[in-house]
Amino acid sequence: MKLGLNLSFAVKRWMKPDVLAKMCAEDFGVKHIQFTWDLVDPWWPEKERDLIASSFSREFEKAGLSIDATFGGLAAYSYPQLLAPSKEMRDISEKFFMRAIDMTSAMGVKVLGTPLGGMDYADARDGKIREERYRSMLDSVCRLASYGKEKGLQHIEIEATPLVTEFPHSPDVSLKLMRDLEGTDIPVMLLIDWGHALFKPLLKDEADISLWFEMCKDHIGAVHLQQTDGQWDRHWDFTNPGGMLSPEFIVEKTKQAGLERIVQYLEVVTIFEDTDEHVYEGMKKSVELLKAAFEK
Amino acid sequence: MKLGLNLSFAVKRWMKPDVLAKMCAEDFGVKHIQFTWDLVDPWWPEKERDLIASSFSREFEKAGLSIDATFGGLAAYSYPQLLAPSKEMRDISEKFFMRAIDMTSAMGVKVLGTPLGGMDYADARDGKIREERYRSMLDSVCRLASYGKEKGLQHIEIEATPLVTEFPHSPDVSLKLMRDLEGTDIPVMLLIDWGHALFKPLLKDEADISLWFEMCKDHIGAVHLQQTDGQWDRHWDFTNPGGMLSPEFIVEKTKQAGLERIVQYLEVVTIFEDTDEHVYEGMKKSVELLKAAFEK
Repeated sequence: MKLGLNLSFAVKRWMKPDVLAKMCAEDFGVKHIQFTWDLVDPWWPEKERDLIASSFSREFEKAGLSIDATFGGLAAYSYPQLLAPSKEMRDISEKFFMRAIDMTSAMGVKVLGTPLGGMDYADARDGKIREERYRSMLDSVCRLASYGKEKGLQHIEIEATPLVTEFPHSPDVSLKLMRDLEGTDIPVMLLIDWGHALFKPLLKDEADISLWFEMCKDHIGAVHLQQTDGQWDRHWDFTNPGGMLSPEFIVEKTKQAGLERIVQYLEVVTIFEDTDEHVYEGMKKSVELLKAAFEK
Repeated sequence: MKLGLNLSFAVKRWMKPDVLAKMCAEDFGVKHIQFTWDLVDPWWPEKERDLIASSFSREFEKAGLSIDATFGGLAAYSYPQLLAPSKEMRDISEKFFMRAIDMTSAMGVKVLGTPLGGMDYADARDGKIREERYRSMLDSVCRLASYGKEKGLQHIEIEATPLVTEFPHSPDVSLKLMRDLEGTDIPVMLLIDWGHALFKPLLKDEADISLWFEMCKDHIGAVHLQQTDGQWDRHWDFTNPGGMLSPEFIVEKTKQAGLERIVQYLEVVTIFEDTDEHVYEGMKKSVELLKAAFEK
């Protein structure tokens, strides 16, 4: 099985590419890296942005690590993106994702992943508008796949999120989305996050990882790992005593579904006011626990 | 005493200016509004950004409410901003804040507030580099004050945050910052957040609101209200049973310091996967509780 690391843990803490690459390679010993847009904002002025972003690719490569993908972070997730209430805002979001494709391409990275956005209260509860938002989002993703192809990307990954005001939030909505996106210029795949998939208050009986994996497995491009309690989308590291997931359970369910080839990126979202030392220790220990189970 | 509302609670939930303005005016009955950049990103293309942002000013004015200030949100706080490790990133941040000034000015709003950013692990722990980052930040804030004056702003508010890797984090660092910024083209003031000021793990004996108010009162432009437990920066609404703050305590301490004239904006940061209905009920009840104490 393949363990990867999303760089979310490093946001506002370890921002120097060489130091961060060394930490990932030598301290954590993880091979697969998913870069987060919380380190470099796709909105930043192109020239400076691409120089900074490329310095991450370069330093990670020097350290012998592969940046497999770039991925939307907390900042991008704070906006409604492709499901925004007005056409002006949806157009701005499409432009944002095009800029993210540009940045990914400039980094020499072949995969981009992101959640798609969220709907306004009233829009999410009106069947007709929901459908319009869904259709408009499909059109945008098709155009982004074409633009991604032009820029040398191999595929795009869409993250399922634990909100009924977003697409997709459940196994069947995820599968429908994949079918509705068949035939795009580069493939559009799914990213499944353990904590989102097991979010009980929304998903109830569907908060079942075997169900997600069975229904979606032909479309899964990557997985996000996090420790969670199933009550909120925690993104804890694996030292948190309140968590419901054991590394052994993760391995068992992944093997049952035949998904061992898929990289699972640990995505820890830290509390800003937590100390760097505490975050570092939690990450180091979590990677050790996960590696022990993944490499068994 | 003056109760205000930061629009953070509405992020990704109520994004239509008319609906949100009506909710704030009629359902919550709050007069003072602090707009958040999480609703409109200063990085968005200028023309569209200013049209969208201005539609918020217009609808809030129609509803009889005053947008007193615009304020940095979670997205802006995810980046290191003026304390970033490289000059390139600090320059990008200054440009970002200039764009935020442009947006604020286009909205017809006279005050802009924000935290200043965060330092890389190694920079924060090196006395010499810490001092360099501090000096470089002062220079940037001076230039931003000049630019703000040019664009018609009245003053800028800097938020104290509960992190030793950021400036300012304590009462004396806040006071020093104010003194170091004396004489800027428009005044630079402080925004004190109850939850930041009472963050015990960092501040220990200084986690004392009377100390903050006494030391900083000549410089306080606004206050952020949140329910908290003093153990993390919670930004809960006031219905959370785990909170340590009572509206009566807030009123008492504010009056003791003679700060009744300062607007205190309730800034609730919601959990993305919480339901809109739960967030709405919590906000409505919180405003009722606070108003009852503030208007006594």
